[in-house]
Amino acid sequence: MNSFGRIFRVSIFGESHGESAGINIDGCPAGLSLSVDDFLEDIERRKGGTQKGTTPRKEDDLPIFKSGVFNGKTTGAPITVLFENKNTRSGDYEKQRAVPRPGHADFVAHAKFGGYEDYRGGGHFSGRLTVCLVAAGVIAKKLLSQVDLTPGPAALKQEGIKVAATILEIGGETDLEKGLQKAIDNKDSIGGIVECRANGLPVGLGEPFFDSVESVISHAVFAIPAIRGVEFGTGFAAAKMFGADHNDAIEDKNGKTKTNHAGGVVGGISNGNELVFRIAVKPTSSTPKEQQTYNWETGEVESFSVKGRHDLCIALRVPVVLEAVTALVLVDLLMLEHHIKRIL
Amino acid sequence: MNSFGRIFRVSIFGESHGESAGINIDGCPAGLSLSVDDFLEDIERRKGGTQKGTTPRKEDDLPIFKSGVFNGKTTGAPITVLFENKNTRSGDYEKQRAVPRPGHADFVAHAKFGGYEDYRGGGHFSGRLTVCLVAAGVIAKKLLSQVDLTPGPAALKQEGIKVAATILEIGGETDLEKGLQKAIDNKDSIGGIVECRANGLPVGLGEPFFDSVESVISHAVFAIPAIRGVEFGTGFAAAKMFGADHNDAIEDKNGKTKTNHAGGVVGGISNGNELVFRIAVKPTSSTPKEQQTYNWETGEVESFSVKGRHDLCIALRVPVVLEAVTALVLVDLLMLEHHIKRIL
Amino acid sequence: MNSFGRIFRVSIFGESHGESAGINIDGCPAGLSLSVDDFLEDIERRKGGTQKGTTPRKEDDLPIFKSGVFNGKTTGAPITVLFENKNTRSGDYEKQRAVPRPGHADFVAHAKFGGYEDYRGGGHFSGRLTVCLVAAGVIAKKLLSQVDLTPGPAALKQEGIKVAATILEIGGETDLEKGLQKAIDNKDSIGGIVECRANGLPVGLGEPFFDSVESVISHAVFAIPAIRGVEFGTGFAAAKMFGADHNDAIEDKNGKTKTNHAGGVVGGISNGNELVFRIAVKPTSSTPKEQQTYNWETGEVESFSVKGRHDLCIALRVPVVLEAVTALVLVDLLMLEHHIKRIL
Amino acid sequence: MNSFGRIFRVSIFGESHGESAGINIDGCPAGLSLSVDDFLEDIERRKGGTQKGTTPRKEDDLPIFKSGVFNGKTTGAPITVLFENKNTRSGDYEKQRAVPRPGHADFVAHAKFGGYEDYRGGGHFSGRLTVCLVAAGVIAKKLLSQVDLTPGPAALKQEGIKVAATILEIGGETDLEKGLQKAIDNKDSIGGIVECRANGLPVGLGEPFFDSVESVISHAVFAIPAIRGVEFGTGFAAAKMFGADHNDAIEDKNGKTKTNHAGGVVGGISNGNELVFRIAVKPTSSTPKEQQTYNWETGEVESFSVKGRHDLCIALRVPVVLEAVTALVLVDLLMLEHHIKRIL
Repeated sequence: MNSFGRIFRVSIFGESHGESAGINIDGCPAGLSLSVDDFLEDIERRKGGTQKGTTPRKEDDLPIFKSGVFNGKTTGAPITVLFENKNTRSGDYEKQRAVPRPGHADFVAHAKFGGYEDYRGGGHFSGRLTVCLVAAGVIAKKLLSQVDLTPGPAALKQEGIKVAATILEIGGETDLEKGLQKAIDNKDSIGGIVECRANGLPVGLGEPFFDSVESVISHAVFAIPAIRGVEFGTGFAAAKMFGADHNDAIEDKNGKTKTNHAGGVVGGISNGNELVFRIAVKPTSSTPKEQQTYNWETGEVESFSVKGRHDLCIALRVPVVLEAVTALVLVDLLMLEHHIKRIL
Repeated sequence: MNSFGRIFRVSIFGESHGESAGINIDGCPAGLSLSVDDFLEDIERRKGGTQKGTTPRKEDDLPIFKSGVFNGKTTGAPITVLFENKNTRSGDYEKQRAVPRPGHADFVAHAKFGGYEDYRGGGHFSGRLTVCLVAAGVIAKKLLSQVDLTPGPAALKQEGIKVAATILEIGGETDLEKGLQKAIDNKDSIGGIVECRANGLPVGLGEPFFDSVESVISHAVFAIPAIRGVEFGTGFAAAKMFGADHNDAIEDKNGKTKTNHAGGVVGGISNGNELVFRIAVKPTSSTPKEQQTYNWETGEVESFSVKGRHDLCIALRVPVVLEAVTALVLVDLLMLEHHIKRIL
Repeated sequence: MNSFGRIFRVSIFGESHGESAGINIDGCPAGLSLSVDDFLEDIERRKGGTQKGTTPRKEDDLPIFKSGVFNGKTTGAPITVLFENKNTRSGDYEKQRAVPRPGHADFVAHAKFGGYEDYRGGGHFSGRLTVCLVAAGVIAKKLLSQVDLTPGPAALKQEGIKVAATILEIGGETDLEKGLQKAIDNKDSIGGIVECRANGLPVGLGEPFFDSVESVISHAVFAIPAIRGVEFGTGFAAAKMFGADHNDAIEDKNGKTKTNHAGGVVGGISNGNELVFRIAVKPTSSTPKEQQTYNWETGEVESFSVKGRHDLCIALRVPVVLEAVTALVLVDLLMLEHHIKRIL
Repeated sequence: MNSFGRIFRVSIFGESHGESAGINIDGCPAGLSLSVDDFLEDIERRKGGTQKGTTPRKEDDLPIFKSGVFNGKTTGAPITVLFENKNTRSGDYEKQRAVPRPGHADFVAHAKFGGYEDYRGGGHFSGRLTVCLVAAGVIAKKLLSQVDLTPGPAALKQEGIKVAATILEIGGETDLEKGLQKAIDNKDSIGGIVECRANGLPVGLGEPFFDSVESVISHAVFAIPAIRGVEFGTGFAAAKMFGADHNDAIEDKNGKTKTNHAGGVVGGISNGNELVFRIAVKPTSSTPKEQQTYNWETGEVESFSVKGRHDLCIALRVPVVLEAVTALVLVDLLMLEHHIKRIL
């Protein structure tokens, strides 16, 4: 339930204020060189500490390899990467318990786990765990950069596969500074839109129906906290279009299309064009504004205000996480089509 | 790969112009009464034959139980439901082969299966197979209507669970006739937006991260051909909102919220409010308009025009299919939380 | 739950006296030629109609392809094979219901499925369904015979992979006629031992721990009704041996060993030597002898005698079923190691 | 691939001489009290340090909870338990590499993982990792002891479920001291037979065919290194029996049988009687005796002798591991039948 992937399979675990957060990766090929340095850039991107609008909390966040790496290379056995939680504030969590924060998982976690959940800082539901996704993504992206697109069912690209996500909008503004300023002016948090593109994919990834490329990518995408929607290619705008305008004319034997309204996926299968999709990120649930919520102890609705460090706009930290889960999916799909082998 | 679900698991098979299309359902509780009559309404809704804008092709589409039903009740063993293909036109499919239709799976199917695919009428990729999803959905909806929400981790609703999907927009118009008329006037096909709502869900369905409610629903939703996006609650509009506006104030011990921007899911877990999500349906790929595509035989891009019966607006037929896949997901999630047992 | 395999995945369904028995095969490569003729020999072997000691019941047992085969070849889409049940006797099953037959699944099926089970002739639990396993096995064995052992992690064999099972003992006798005669003389049924060998396997199939070759083979083997034990290589005799006697000396760079006490599997992984394992088959539960069982209606233990056609020694029919499930496992393991591709 | 279980799912990782060995447990109910003390007895049993015939290597082997436990109770989130490797000898592993040890995984690991495997002390293939299985087993056995057998499809036992494994034979001797002495006298290692019994199981666990109780138990059993066979109830002896002798007469409405040749499983389903099965454990592969093996560097077969600490009879350490994997299976099967809930 906390796992994803058929061949390249990741399992996430840990809590925000517990011992650690971590990830277990099963099915990674043997022979991939891997060092702490490989992780630094993406972990730094996720922190977002220097960006306006992101939380000042920082962890060293150095990945600790607990298994599966030997002499600087993956061994083919499961890889376990731990992140220790050092920079936690003890806080007055007991007191906070009676007041489930709106927009957060406090209420549902309590109901689902009968009050046994680790409620400190969101516990297992915390965005803290996205550092584990990022770590798995680093490994997946390294695999993608080295993918061997051996002659297959259709003409295939020669270079590796690249995945890149960028912020398109903050608070409805493409001038992102402007969007953030709206939130600052309003003393509130704000949402945004992030786009992800992958280049170099072969034709033929994914399956008809249940394991369509869109199915498995959206499955992974909604594992990221705060995501509220996903659309491929032209997406929701396609609902307003005519068929002849939306259809992408095929131009050559490799399947290159004149336009890319499909976003690189037709019939659930990659068609060799750029994979393009966008996600909606809700405004950070923790906002300085006063809100209303129910108090379990008093049985009353009361005013409530979030204290402490929080992100003005969580969307700013999402791109590297989105790249990560996308890379996980693509590695798995490539393995199912034999483009990535057990030994590099 | 053609299967979905962890406990209530469906496997789809068949082709548009082959022997049959069918579905195998594993994990259905024993003791559910089931007859051909149960299927007629939803199968009729899917046909859309009387609606302006839907295809005139009709099959009798009577479900044939091949296993798992005895004396009018499910036995607990796998249920197999077949739909025979009677109303197929032999067509000039061989000729069509060299010309992969834009927007259709012809090109990717050929690449993925090396030319061995059944290419007649889209073969295994055909929308024809959604009749199988509808059949599975009938069974799932029957289970939902009888669900026993025994005292659980949170206060639970007493009546059964209802899933209902409706069309919100055609071609950007909420006046649906107007939207269809635009397409007719333009001699083209057109897209639409469909919304699905489920009432009566308990708190606590879904898992943090990989098996969030949004993850599994979107996974299933993108199994429906022609879907290009999905959004929960306020969805993409949330990306433009401030946090205090988006957060739903909790109002009582059952988790009832004042607003429902979250669409009934927080932290990946159902929160006891109405589940609400929308999907974007692209315009039917088959359109009377002339289009361009590559011809494998000639090696040239050529003009191309689709002949024969087709839907003006495939979105019109989607609601019953969307209800079906949603019901499949909900039954599976309810089983994982022990709300549906092995024997009714 | 009625499925098996990770990539090459089979789902079994049907009943002994219902409409049909069948199997759905997902993940079969496109391009495998397949006709009814391919199945006849193994289906005939399973019937055992001409052997002393096997049941006179005969079905035509011609496989009916319902999906996944087009122009005599697999398409890459799921294959569904049906066997219709024609030769059923209506029988007095209602009466029989109150008396669960010893050794049969009557009692447990009733308890598990709350009385909704199809109880006629064992229903879904019937050995009748092994014809579906045999059919899947025919396909798997065809794939094995064509396997492309491309240069891999170790030196690999050039010819295809062969799986063959034979009866070693009946009733403790290696002279099988003698064993059967004991049963005939005793007016009772009798058990036996069957051995399976697979040649041509590459080194490296299977995984350490949970997906060891022994784990997945034994998982599949115990899907065959009436199996009570499985042992690999020297098996139970190894428990009496000294280490230096049991260890197989490695003799060359391909891993060839001097002896083969390991039966071709070390550390859960195939070692390139012949795979050898044996299974114990219990005596047919249906025996002409009078037995005792509980009567649900009377609440009394009563004498009971099985009427009708039954196998004197079910082990006689097991070899072809054992080959089938072994072939299913091997195809799946070979796919995971990329020795069998999506397109032949 | 390194995971097992459908609802209660364990993933094993780590190496013999790497950083650590560990296990991740997903699906454990919230609210189970858990402390280091719970693990001490079984970890001690596994060490076997005081028994004649077991290795002198000792680790402190204290489990370190990395996730999923809070305030001394499970939270419902994934549990990660680590065991650090402290007591490793640096050894001359580089030199040893060229000489794959007979009976060990050295050769297959090298072939499967292309030389990237952690070869020190067997790496990921090491019996060291059974400490992780034992840890998971402790949790599973605690769940079994508290199982709530709510009124189900058949009359159910009231007390918890108990799993106990014992050694039946060493080297063919039921007097175990005598068996060990044979090995000592012969300066060699020796095999043995271990039996496992589980009491208090409800009727109805397991599925027909692929997920029979025997299938899933044997799958788990062969995850234990050195196991060569498994048999249920009368097992291989059943192959010599007549049907009327093997069948167990049903004596009451709860399914109690007069004899238990079936070992508690009929038709793949638990029948409410004691679950009984036995496994064959091969002699420890590491033996003081001189053996032959191939040297990759010299290309010659050479004499070889294992130095260092090793078990005279690995079977002595198996019972607690066998109990562990059996408990894992039973918890999973009970969850599938709703006998164990998400919250205790």
